[in-house]
Amino acid sequence: MVDLIEKKRDNKEHSYEEIQFIINQYMQNKIPDYQISAWAMAIYFNSMSELELTYLTEALVASGEQLDLSDINGIKVDKHSTGGVGDTTTLIVAPLVASLGVPVAKMSGRGLGYTGGTVDKLNSIPGFNTDLSMSNFIHLVNQQKLAIIGQTKNLTPADKKLYSLRDVTATVDSIPLIASSIMSKKIAAGADCLILDVKLGSGAFMKTLDSAENLASTMVKIGKNHNKKTMAIISNMDEPLGYMIGNALEVKEAIETLKGNGPKDLEELSLVLASYMVYFANKATSVKQAQVMLRETISSGKAIETFKTFIASQGGNSTVVDNVSLLPKARYQIPVYSKEEGFVSAISAHQIGTIAMLLGAGRTTKTSVIDPAVGIELRKKVGEHVKKNEPLAFLHINDNKPSNIISQVESSFTISTEKQEPNRLIYKTIF
Amino acid sequence: MVDLIEKKRDNKEHSYEEIQFIINQYMQNKIPDYQISAWAMAIYFNSMSELELTYLTEALVASGEQLDLSDINGIKVDKHSTGGVGDTTTLIVAPLVASLGVPVAKMSGRGLGYTGGTVDKLNSIPGFNTDLSMSNFIHLVNQQKLAIIGQTKNLTPADKKLYSLRDVTATVDSIPLIASSIMSKKIAAGADCLILDVKLGSGAFMKTLDSAENLASTMVKIGKNHNKKTMAIISNMDEPLGYMIGNALEVKEAIETLKGNGPKDLEELSLVLASYMVYFANKATSVKQAQVMLRETISSGKAIETFKTFIASQGGNSTVVDNVSLLPKARYQIPVYSKEEGFVSAISAHQIGTIAMLLGAGRTTKTSVIDPAVGIELRKKVGEHVKKNEPLAFLHINDNKPSNIISQVESSFTISTEKQEPNRLIYKTIF
Repeated sequence: MVDLIEKKRDNKEHSYEEIQFIINQYMQNKIPDYQISAWAMAIYFNSMSELELTYLTEALVASGEQLDLSDINGIKVDKHSTGGVGDTTTLIVAPLVASLGVPVAKMSGRGLGYTGGTVDKLNSIPGFNTDLSMSNFIHLVNQQKLAIIGQTKNLTPADKKLYSLRDVTATVDSIPLIASSIMSKKIAAGADCLILDVKLGSGAFMKTLDSAENLASTMVKIGKNHNKKTMAIISNMDEPLGYMIGNALEVKEAIETLKGNGPKDLEELSLVLASYMVYFANKATSVKQAQVMLRETISSGKAIETFKTFIASQGGNSTVVDNVSLLPKARYQIPVYSKEEGFVSAISAHQIGTIAMLLGAGRTTKTSVIDPAVGIELRKKVGEHVKKNEPLAFLHINDNKPSNIISQVESSFTISTEKQEPNRLIYKTIF
Repeated sequence: MVDLIEKKRDNKEHSYEEIQFIINQYMQNKIPDYQISAWAMAIYFNSMSELELTYLTEALVASGEQLDLSDINGIKVDKHSTGGVGDTTTLIVAPLVASLGVPVAKMSGRGLGYTGGTVDKLNSIPGFNTDLSMSNFIHLVNQQKLAIIGQTKNLTPADKKLYSLRDVTATVDSIPLIASSIMSKKIAAGADCLILDVKLGSGAFMKTLDSAENLASTMVKIGKNHNKKTMAIISNMDEPLGYMIGNALEVKEAIETLKGNGPKDLEELSLVLASYMVYFANKATSVKQAQVMLRETISSGKAIETFKTFIASQGGNSTVVDNVSLLPKARYQIPVYSKEEGFVSAISAHQIGTIAMLLGAGRTTKTSVIDPAVGIELRKKVGEHVKKNEPLAFLHINDNKPSNIISQVESSFTISTEKQEPNRLIYKTIF
């Protein structure tokens, strides 16, 4: 192993056998943590070649179970977001494409950070169960084209072990390691095609277009080398997506969007992601055609109907779709007023996300318990006009929180005298 | 600690408190190996500033005992070589400078690699004891200006712990870590001045003049920042130093040199090192004057007399000085003949050193047992003429070794038709 660390340290390329050796021996505890952490730090500095990444991802996938979706008819398409603030696109995209006959057999993790993951959001719907048996999961997808379950314990255990070590050795922030980690989970989850949404901006892991492009193209390459049709978009995460940040709040906003009443940015991003999924699944001859079909499925009510059926099929109270007040609701809704008149020129997604997490909408540690009801409801987005003493946002909270949270939310907004164009939503598309 | 690894990874400078924290907590096992190895790999890539190195060296020194040489009269001068093949200069330099009244209270480690260290060489003298009490050690230096002991167990334990980890995580080969490791041991050993001999060439750790200069100037800076008068020379280690490689063989060659009959390169390097020691100890007004004094002490017989007294004072059989055949002698002396006539243009110190180690002159692992008698005696050095079937070298061995050792020694020599100038001995002097 010393020779292999030295090889990576000296920027030489690992062979297939070497990568297999490292991951297999590490999983058998035959290579100690202190060698893997030195190796990971060498990767941080010297990166990995496309071949090495393909081998590493393969080894991570092979370390655990892989979902066998072969009993599901049709081309299975999955989507993945690298994580942002107010990103509830999965709850919109999944029923959208399912309503056009694209099978979505989605496995989703719990969230760590700003707000919950898809599973946490779904769990805010009373009765909703993400803990299905594999046969029931596959049965539901075949029957209604859509089911979402939590991540099984034995998916990519080598990635889990490696990530835990990276987390305490300052080696998380490495594009090849991030890319192989994400892609190993997606590949093990068994879909045929992957649509990746790489977030860029203050509320995202990637802060520069260069690094976001690097991550996106690295993941696309890994996907293709594993015979998965893969593409990525790079989307804006400077301000939160949509108006709602928090688990039940985001379910509510997803319902509105599926009914055709959603925020412009959330709807547009969802339609872009969904259209690539429909196109990859051969249900449309072009992305443009897919978009037209998707808009129709919203306006016809088919999209929200699919969501309703989906909720009911997994034990949830599907009447929330017609009556969103049945979703968990926080005791207090506290307005945050603007101190000046002008135009919103920026909203720090990072700051809003952090406040939401501290309110209980997200997890600070793996064992934190999420409060589904709490969060932040924005009333203004970038480009909008605001009067003095008009609400910028509402805090949805269950406890009395110290008053400085209000000033923190307020300071997340930048107000200018001149009107600012809304943020560009999609920076790039990478095939 | 994660933040500190990240800091070094991002090429920011550690504070005094941070370095103290890292070393102290590591020694208390409160920072795990896997974090230190990632940190060391980050240092490998981003190096350390002069300030950081000074702090690190101080922390390593403070982790264990420090020799208190204050009871020794005069300015104590120590020398250190980064290690080469046939480097027996300490056995020459120490009695040389002691004979001019410079106190040498030397603590020396056991060797790992090509051949033994100074302690191993001395232990090849029948009866010689390097395991003195501290009071006896100091008494001997005060009485006769010279004593040499093995390294005490509790000198720089943090360096030992760190080195063991570096050894298995491909982070040995880092100039800041090498420099702080060497200097911590030298500083803990208590001398006032340090003369460093950084070896450069095939038989040395440093293979390029740039890296050797970097190591030398880094060590000189660390020494000065710890209020030790420090200088370094960079000397040639492309071919072995002198003609003898092996423990008893090198003692024999040291005796010859102290009598004025040594090999030119070994004598010259010893005189250079010794003259700086004498000058640093204020026993001469210039390095030049020191050289003159040192040549006199050889020609007058005072140097060899000092060596004799030194051997006797530490329990050794001092008659070896007059009768070198009393030193351990190998059973077989096997000649290695030249297959062609010409001039020696190169002798691979690395190859000769490795063969010597495999014969038993050096340790392959910490627990290997050294055979003091074995080794290689060169008969030709670079620049010398050799006839066909004239011996290039003699193997001194105790067992029948496979015949390919003979061909390996032979292939360590490069014979050319044109006369080659002897290697340049000293590349640089760094203050």
